Amino acid sequence: MPKPNTDADYPSVICTVDVVLLTLKGQSLHVVLLRRKSEPFMGLPALPGGFVHTQEDATAWDAATRVLREKTGIVSPYLEQLASYSGAERDPRGWSVSLVYYALVPLEALSLQTEGLLLAPVAKLPKLPFDHRRIVDEAVARVRSKSQYSSLPVYLCQDRITLPRLQAVYEAVLGEPINKVSFRRKMDEMGMLEPVEGELEGGAAHRPAQVYRLKKAYRKELSVVTRGLNS
Amino acid sequence: MPKPNTDADYPSVICTVDVVLLTLKGQSLHVVLLRRKSEPFMGLPALPGGFVHTQEDATAWDAATRVLREKTGIVSPYLEQLASYSGAERDPRGWSVSLVYYALVPLEALSLQTEGLLLAPVAKLPKLPFDHRRIVDEAVARVRSKSQYSSLPVYLCQDRITLPRLQAVYEAVLGEPINKVSFRRKMDEMGMLEPVEGELEGGAAHRPAQVYRLKKAYRKELSVVTRGLNS
Repeated sequence: MPKPNTDADYPSVICTVDVVLLTLKGQSLHVVLLRRKSEPFMGLPALPGGFVHTQEDATAWDAATRVLREKTGIVSPYLEQLASYSGAERDPRGWSVSLVYYALVPLEALSLQTEGLLLAPVAKLPKLPFDHRRIVDEAVARVRSKSQYSSLPVYLCQDRITLPRLQAVYEAVLGEPINKVSFRRKMDEMGMLEPVEGELEGGAAHRPAQVYRLKKAYRKELSVVTRGLNS
Repeated sequence: MPKPNTDADYPSVICTVDVVLLTLKGQSLHVVLLRRKSEPFMGLPALPGGFVHTQEDATAWDAATRVLREKTGIVSPYLEQLASYSGAERDPRGWSVSLVYYALVPLEALSLQTEGLLLAPVAKLPKLPFDHRRIVDEAVARVRSKSQYSSLPVYLCQDRITLPRLQAVYEAVLGEPINKVSFRRKMDEMGMLEPVEGELEGGAAHRPAQVYRLKKAYRKELSVVTRGLNS
């Protein structure tokens, strides 16, 4: 096999992808972890990840999508790059680069039957190997900041949603209550939802709420507004 | 040599660092390029870069610092990570990751005698190999956006500066005029400058201007304000 990544006799760099897959359980953000089946750190829960397969993955995004599919069964969610994490110390096997992505999925999309799969609340993570703790923290911070002014939290919802439920999702992600009037104005401005004709949802105590779905254009792309929910 | 970066028989990933080194020449941002001494793209001007030396560089930042020192003679400027660029197509040698950094230096810090060194205006780049054109464009966008609310452009200046000259530097980076009063208020707020006692600079036509220098604390760290120059 060719070993082109060095101009002197240096050992190769290890190149992996890791995915911070977030979901909402109850009213709190959880991260998907998998028990490691091999060394190093065998048995510890860790982010789903794997080596880049250079003859198979055209891009890092492709590698992350493949790893997610193979390890969790999740097929092509909205996946965005977080950052790269690299250095001599982060992996006991050697100098490594991890290209890290994050994705948000509805709880219902996860097969909790997957062997070794765990959900951990991001506010109370177990001991994680490598620099995965720092990676999860940075992914959560990114998701919170991006949710202020985009449709990102919608990916936590199933196909059909009402505005009261969507507001609860935004509040769970942001970790704080949102003013109802300003929330509805932002959703209007984002223009990402369309009403499902004639479909209402409601319990006995509430006025029935219109059911919406995400417009097709926003299933693979965020809707972004310039001013956030808190401005 | 060990080849640990694959779990199947995939060729290794090529891991490099590249640096977008920016300087001000006249009133416009220029990027430092070096003519490539080897294939691929031998002879074309490209970003200073090189392979990660896994037994020598503890971090990607260390690798970028080393490459910059070896190839341009620049020693430890303020260096910040831009992003990683990766994939099967960007380098004809194979699947590659480049960890890209950017740095701003005063023109005087550059040895223009370095063999093969060129300065190209970022607004009029020559043909660049790999995805270096996109990388330069993204670095310039980052520097512009960050300069709105930080001390970043100060690294383009030599040790001692006056406020009128510093304003001209900010204007050159941002590509637009800045209101003098609001500029001075921002500089005050950033608190990064200290007057050099008794040192004034001035031509015949102008009132002499106080000479300042960057406080020690900000030589390796930016001063950041929450609201930008245009707000």
